[in-house]
Amino acid sequence: MEDILKQVQEGTLSIEEAKAKLATYENLGFAKVDHHRKKRQGFPEIIYGEGKTAEHILSIMEAIKGKNNNVLVTRITKDKAETIIQQHPEFTYNEGARVLYWLQENQPKEKGKGYIAVVCAGTSDLNVAEEAAITAEVLGCEVRRIYDVGVAGIHRLFDNIEEIQNATASVVVAGMEGALPSVVGGLVSHPVIAVPTSIGYGANFNGLSALLTMLNSCASGISVVNIDNGFGGGYNAALINKLVNKE
Amino acid sequence: MEDILKQVQEGTLSIEEAKAKLATYENLGFAKVDHHRKKRQGFPEIIYGEGKTAEHILSIMEAIKGKNNNVLVTRITKDKAETIIQQHPEFTYNEGARVLYWLQENQPKEKGKGYIAVVCAGTSDLNVAEEAAITAEVLGCEVRRIYDVGVAGIHRLFDNIEEIQNATASVVVAGMEGALPSVVGGLVSHPVIAVPTSIGYGANFNGLSALLTMLNSCASGISVVNIDNGFGGGYNAALINKLVNKE
Amino acid sequence: MEDILKQVQEGTLSIEEAKAKLATYENLGFAKVDHHRKKRQGFPEIIYGEGKTAEHILSIMEAIKGKNNNVLVTRITKDKAETIIQQHPEFTYNEGARVLYWLQENQPKEKGKGYIAVVCAGTSDLNVAEEAAITAEVLGCEVRRIYDVGVAGIHRLFDNIEEIQNATASVVVAGMEGALPSVVGGLVSHPVIAVPTSIGYGANFNGLSALLTMLNSCASGISVVNIDNGFGGGYNAALINKLVNKE
Amino acid sequence: MEDILKQVQEGTLSIEEAKAKLATYENLGFAKVDHHRKKRQGFPEIIYGEGKTAEHILSIMEAIKGKNNNVLVTRITKDKAETIIQQHPEFTYNEGARVLYWLQENQPKEKGKGYIAVVCAGTSDLNVAEEAAITAEVLGCEVRRIYDVGVAGIHRLFDNIEEIQNATASVVVAGMEGALPSVVGGLVSHPVIAVPTSIGYGANFNGLSALLTMLNSCASGISVVNIDNGFGGGYNAALINKLVNKE
Amino acid sequence: MEDILKQVQEGTLSIEEAKAKLATYENLGFAKVDHHRKKRQGFPEIIYGEGKTAEHILSIMEAIKGKNNNVLVTRITKDKAETIIQQHPEFTYNEGARVLYWLQENQPKEKGKGYIAVVCAGTSDLNVAEEAAITAEVLGCEVRRIYDVGVAGIHRLFDNIEEIQNATASVVVAGMEGALPSVVGGLVSHPVIAVPTSIGYGANFNGLSALLTMLNSCASGISVVNIDNGFGGGYNAALINKLVNKE
Amino acid sequence: MEDILKQVQEGTLSIEEAKAKLATYENLGFAKVDHHRKKRQGFPEIIYGEGKTAEHILSIMEAIKGKNNNVLVTRITKDKAETIIQQHPEFTYNEGARVLYWLQENQPKEKGKGYIAVVCAGTSDLNVAEEAAITAEVLGCEVRRIYDVGVAGIHRLFDNIEEIQNATASVVVAGMEGALPSVVGGLVSHPVIAVPTSIGYGANFNGLSALLTMLNSCASGISVVNIDNGFGGGYNAALINKLVNKE
Amino acid sequence: MEDILKQVQEGTLSIEEAKAKLATYENLGFAKVDHHRKKRQGFPEIIYGEGKTAEHILSIMEAIKGKNNNVLVTRITKDKAETIIQQHPEFTYNEGARVLYWLQENQPKEKGKGYIAVVCAGTSDLNVAEEAAITAEVLGCEVRRIYDVGVAGIHRLFDNIEEIQNATASVVVAGMEGALPSVVGGLVSHPVIAVPTSIGYGANFNGLSALLTMLNSCASGISVVNIDNGFGGGYNAALINKLVNKE
Amino acid sequence: MEDILKQVQEGTLSIEEAKAKLATYENLGFAKVDHHRKKRQGFPEIIYGEGKTAEHILSIMEAIKGKNNNVLVTRITKDKAETIIQQHPEFTYNEGARVLYWLQENQPKEKGKGYIAVVCAGTSDLNVAEEAAITAEVLGCEVRRIYDVGVAGIHRLFDNIEEIQNATASVVVAGMEGALPSVVGGLVSHPVIAVPTSIGYGANFNGLSALLTMLNSCASGISVVNIDNGFGGGYNAALINKLVNKE
Repeated sequence: MEDILKQVQEGTLSIEEAKAKLATYENLGFAKVDHHRKKRQGFPEIIYGEGKTAEHILSIMEAIKGKNNNVLVTRITKDKAETIIQQHPEFTYNEGARVLYWLQENQPKEKGKGYIAVVCAGTSDLNVAEEAAITAEVLGCEVRRIYDVGVAGIHRLFDNIEEIQNATASVVVAGMEGALPSVVGGLVSHPVIAVPTSIGYGANFNGLSALLTMLNSCASGISVVNIDNGFGGGYNAALINKLVNKE
Repeated sequence: MEDILKQVQEGTLSIEEAKAKLATYENLGFAKVDHHRKKRQGFPEIIYGEGKTAEHILSIMEAIKGKNNNVLVTRITKDKAETIIQQHPEFTYNEGARVLYWLQENQPKEKGKGYIAVVCAGTSDLNVAEEAAITAEVLGCEVRRIYDVGVAGIHRLFDNIEEIQNATASVVVAGMEGALPSVVGGLVSHPVIAVPTSIGYGANFNGLSALLTMLNSCASGISVVNIDNGFGGGYNAALINKLVNKE
Repeated sequence: MEDILKQVQEGTLSIEEAKAKLATYENLGFAKVDHHRKKRQGFPEIIYGEGKTAEHILSIMEAIKGKNNNVLVTRITKDKAETIIQQHPEFTYNEGARVLYWLQENQPKEKGKGYIAVVCAGTSDLNVAEEAAITAEVLGCEVRRIYDVGVAGIHRLFDNIEEIQNATASVVVAGMEGALPSVVGGLVSHPVIAVPTSIGYGANFNGLSALLTMLNSCASGISVVNIDNGFGGGYNAALINKLVNKE
Repeated sequence: MEDILKQVQEGTLSIEEAKAKLATYENLGFAKVDHHRKKRQGFPEIIYGEGKTAEHILSIMEAIKGKNNNVLVTRITKDKAETIIQQHPEFTYNEGARVLYWLQENQPKEKGKGYIAVVCAGTSDLNVAEEAAITAEVLGCEVRRIYDVGVAGIHRLFDNIEEIQNATASVVVAGMEGALPSVVGGLVSHPVIAVPTSIGYGANFNGLSALLTMLNSCASGISVVNIDNGFGGGYNAALINKLVNKE
Repeated sequence: MEDILKQVQEGTLSIEEAKAKLATYENLGFAKVDHHRKKRQGFPEIIYGEGKTAEHILSIMEAIKGKNNNVLVTRITKDKAETIIQQHPEFTYNEGARVLYWLQENQPKEKGKGYIAVVCAGTSDLNVAEEAAITAEVLGCEVRRIYDVGVAGIHRLFDNIEEIQNATASVVVAGMEGALPSVVGGLVSHPVIAVPTSIGYGANFNGLSALLTMLNSCASGISVVNIDNGFGGGYNAALINKLVNKE
Repeated sequence: MEDILKQVQEGTLSIEEAKAKLATYENLGFAKVDHHRKKRQGFPEIIYGEGKTAEHILSIMEAIKGKNNNVLVTRITKDKAETIIQQHPEFTYNEGARVLYWLQENQPKEKGKGYIAVVCAGTSDLNVAEEAAITAEVLGCEVRRIYDVGVAGIHRLFDNIEEIQNATASVVVAGMEGALPSVVGGLVSHPVIAVPTSIGYGANFNGLSALLTMLNSCASGISVVNIDNGFGGGYNAALINKLVNKE
Repeated sequence: MEDILKQVQEGTLSIEEAKAKLATYENLGFAKVDHHRKKRQGFPEIIYGEGKTAEHILSIMEAIKGKNNNVLVTRITKDKAETIIQQHPEFTYNEGARVLYWLQENQPKEKGKGYIAVVCAGTSDLNVAEEAAITAEVLGCEVRRIYDVGVAGIHRLFDNIEEIQNATASVVVAGMEGALPSVVGGLVSHPVIAVPTSIGYGANFNGLSALLTMLNSCASGISVVNIDNGFGGGYNAALINKLVNKE
Repeated sequence: MEDILKQVQEGTLSIEEAKAKLATYENLGFAKVDHHRKKRQGFPEIIYGEGKTAEHILSIMEAIKGKNNNVLVTRITKDKAETIIQQHPEFTYNEGARVLYWLQENQPKEKGKGYIAVVCAGTSDLNVAEEAAITAEVLGCEVRRIYDVGVAGIHRLFDNIEEIQNATASVVVAGMEGALPSVVGGLVSHPVIAVPTSIGYGANFNGLSALLTMLNSCASGISVVNIDNGFGGGYNAALINKLVNKE
């Protein structure tokens, strides 16, 4: 702003021109809003695939790839993914997790000791867990998968507890009664992102049961994302992990 | 019936008299309905205290005591209990569990190896657990209390797991996320009666959260009673324990 | 442990070897957790079929059969069952109950007087009732089926009440208003496992109506499992029946 | 109308006057709406007491009494009722049912064979049942009370079933699981008005459980009114009873 | 009973034979339960078609027809209905209402002045209304259909109000906001059976909205059946109409 | 901005001063956001009283009054209102509606033909209706009150329909089944703001029933505000009325 | 009426004839009900397409077009629309919004400065937004579309805020958390009609989340229509816009 | 373990003694479970005050203080807090947040640049926000409070956005429609812990509205804790902040 004003003072800038520039400046006032967002650089663009055509997704993806970013498309059907892969065989599709993604080859490995533990209760929660794990990986994090360690056979959890405890953050995915985050939360000292799944039947009410369980957990250090929102789990954990590794 | 008919045959009973007797007999046709109920002898009469006056409760209790049975009144307020105890100081009132009861002095100890484990997650679930425990005791069972062993500090549960495993049946009481029965259910080989409590806040919705958790448990061998229904938990466990000890 | 220590004392085991063995021992520390579970021997492995492929199920089943155990697969579709039966024609599939199972030929008949009554209200609840009945049978119990005795024509129930009363435990299956367990619960002296079904329409809300009815039953001695959870009903009843017969 | 037109024809009524009269006539066009309502004569005015002051209620009541009708005030608190009774000691207040009423002394007894059965499950449903019974009585019906015959001890119902069967209509009041109307509905051939009560706890959800049970009844011939709406139960039954007796 | 006893007294019946006869007598004790049900003679058997095969339905129907009764099958799919009609072309199928029925040719016309008004709010509620209307007709009642008179264009209702007012009972069918029964209830002096339909979208929640509206109606004389339960509406109205016409 | 720049150009403003002024200007960038809000001048400040102390409310009110605006405090208890009135006897408190307000004496009467109709179903909805009416009045609108015209006695509505039809907008307040807005909506050609109240009992669920009814109305031209939100109803209607009168 | 009476007075009309005419007149008493509805002339007939056949819709449409009105059919499937367009290629179908419509060619442009802003949060809310926009256009309003300005990237909203602020009324469409109307409501001074959509997953519960958000908005001046009810949003806004432009 | 074995080898420890020691060792196997929990040292003990007596709380607090830790008691009533403060005037009680706490005087200031932003929407959310803020402070974090910046007046948020953006993590507290976290989540690049409050009325359903809003947020990087769970918000944010500062 000082520059503009100086030029006005010096007469090298007309008032009209100054107004236009300041208008732009002011218009960019909201840029500060995106200021910190830019700090996240290295974070890929993420495309919510539901309701978008393959063509639409393709054009967005190509624009992003041009910027040498990782690319992640969530909630994308097999049909659309295959259409895209025909043109871009370098993309990978995970059918269960319904994600399509591309990792840069020369992506500078994130240094730092932090990794994320993605934990799930049963094999039927695996797809949501994979959505979380791949999300965190595309966001540049190291991920350790600890699957099928539900509370009804709790020794399976204890066999793996140290790997979970050493993580920077855990994403804990569970359906049915959704009790796993409470048990994990009592055993670790890092933030636990709980992801309820819609797996179950009867009074499960499409994940409501697991959601309420997690919200009411008596263990501290647990926060919850939407039902089946594996992406949200992975994204939150990656935000935390990156804060740690950044230092 | 044979007796009545014989007397008719022998002429010692008029047809009118026989009809009256058979009417009574028929009227007792439903007695068969109560046939097995009688096998439960030794089971006390149980009085649901809510909405009954102290006087009303007192008159029922005195009738029962006369038959040399244990007596149990559930959901009775302190006021009413104190009114009754003034006349019958031999009664005991448990304010938290809201039960008033009397155990016969010379009650023949139930022989047999079975006992019931009443397990609860937190100290705030204690009142419901006590309602379960006292109910089972008044029904003549031995009860072991394992309290404050919730999943957020799961080592507390493991310190006591053998005592729970050796029981005939467990009553597992938990509020908030209600995850404890799932963990216990995976560790024992006897029936688990799960009792959700209304303890909690926010999205607990007065026990709905714990109720749904328990109904959706992925551990086998768990069945559920109503929210805060400690009596139901204790009663079901006692039914099972008595079946075992009877043999 | 004593053996290991003795060998150390006797010098026949090096400290390193002893540590490894004790580590294993300790690692098996959770074995105590499964200690009582082993007591249930004769209990078949049970496979939850939903979300597993026929191949996956097949490989698990063959492993189990090798141990001379009964085999039970629940929630398995007709397609998968037929694929498996092609290779193992000795398996039986019940399409309504969606269970696939195999009973050992020389299974030692469980001695003892106990049997389980599986009771259902209407013909539309039959599939869930069959899931319960077959579960209990595969678990080695004798089962008596008393079907289509709903409360709207209550004389049907009374015609069969004695057979129900003489059981060790009842599984009572009902949809729509779900009132049957309350009536049965008032007529028997053993534990009743109530199974709500999702049969009904309108304000039934997929079984919520029957579920709430059963949870709120004013009859004592009733506990509840999840909506349509015939397996849970049969499993709980079998646990009780085996406790009785074991003595 | 003919009269008005004749007078116009005869010139004894000016056009302006005729217009005014016809306007009134037209304005009364809605009278036809109330035409059949008038047929119900003998039906008392009913005052919903909630939210009205004692003074307000009193003034309405006095206006009605002047017309020699029975008077019924529902949902009126003890305080307000006592204030009114001080001035009108001929009124009767039923505290449990929260109704205040007055029956004409010389009310011509309704002839006819019909009576209404008011049936309730437990003593805690008694207040709602009384609201139904008194409502029907104030509406001129004979009422038979059959109380405390809930399904958990079903022999109590059978001891009274004939009296219920002989009624013109039944009002069946039940809380908790609300199963009684289903059983009664299967045993009678007249309309059953089911009244769920809010009695219960936990997963009763203030009467929701009983309401759903009744709406989902598999017995034909049952219709339902709002939770705790004893008045509605009595009123509907009285409408039916009067139709029968009128013939 | 007297006969049996006399024969015993006279020695013409052995005690064993008498016991058997009395057992039968007692066993028929429940016959009284069906006593009044028999009074309904002329009422057709009603078959709930859902979940039954065409063959199953056919065999029941033929048995009933043999007794010269009307026949009504509800909730039957077009496929099954057509299979049955191929063999019994005298049956009529209403696809919208999903009912299949047969009226005896020489059915003695029910005498009497009463008829039932079946009223519906919109054309999309028509199928449920038809299920109600046909049910009442098969039960022998005269039915008047007043359709498409919803409250958003209330003049349509007023054009038909007298026909509704003169009925013995009304079945009022409405979806969406379900306000019609409240308006009708304020204009008639007979019982109104309200039938909520699942017609609507969004916050209609499959008929919950209309159901709650009807349960909360501030008009007296309204009772409610389950969502989309046209059969229940017609059946209840027919019970009332028959009571009236019987006199 | 031009002024500032000119002064810089002319040297009458230093760059530092210009920066400060432009900073202010930019800081006021959001002023554009409030630009249209200012057009509403004459609209009083509205204070949500819940959770604020009398002192806090008083200080805000005095600041507003200084600007010669009307003042409206909603959801304020009697206690707080009386405390304030002691110091400012010119304020008026409406206890039922829980609003405290002050109208300028010399408020220039809003010219224009528009007025708002505030309609309510029953006397128990009166408080919410008054909150709506007073809100609209404090906002400078003429209000006509048409109260106690619920659908169960629909002739009361028709007696007043023309006054409602001639309004610019209606606020229609109803509890219990909440059917009134649907009927009004079918009779008028202006926007109807529907306000559900929590009046009712049982399956009313604190206003949920009326809320759903209104959201599902099949009449066009109805929009809905929160349960008991009389303020919202009055405010929306006033926005519309002012748009009309402004022209 | 005066004419009729005069003719009676003059003897040119018999009393019988006069009665018939007045009956007609009275029968038209409800015409006053539709009086104001007629004022809306220029409003097209709107046909709710759901559940109507193409033939049915076609016949209604042709009748309307004859009257030189715009035509709007909502909730019509592509199949039906194409059938109609084959005969009337002048109709336009919007597949996403599911509306079929026809605008008169010579429709006199509505004069006046008012326009409606239709605002939506995400591209997946677009179909509902289009239903609102087209509805308002068919009703004769100018519409400005401001799409994809959801709160998670709030600068997009601010880039367009002035166009929204200058509208007469806004329709704000949002799914998922539904927060957009609250933000818009705080920035404009005209009525906001909020339309929740069913877009989302998990704990969205088919639009319940967005619906509750909008009903609970702390911004004044917001009213809400049913989930996905784009028509309702457009209709309400058009009513307001027409009131303004009419002046 | 090696020591024990060596002593056995060397004969200085009997096998019995070794078994006892190893049993202890094994018993401590779960110590590893608490291994990482110890890393959190410096974290105070946190006491959930609800349902505990002042005496009980006092004894726990004194034990903790002895270890030179901060102390935090949540959900403690004023009465209990005052009783405790009488003996320990160094404790501070925050009545709105219902927390009682004590900070060590010589607590080594946590070095590091991170701070937590606690943001709330309205003044009525202040108590929950304070519970979050104090929790984080007692856990050793620097906290910045940005209060009363709800979305209905969004410029208030923008005035403070940079301070929020520069935090390590945000706790965003909002009641009513709960939209604030979505807006904040779109403007920051760190994890947002969203805390719904029960503030609101009508269709707020005690915080359900805000809870669903937050779970359904279309902004990434948001996770949610239970309704009114300020403690959970502060605790989760502190876990994250400590991870960052630790590096």
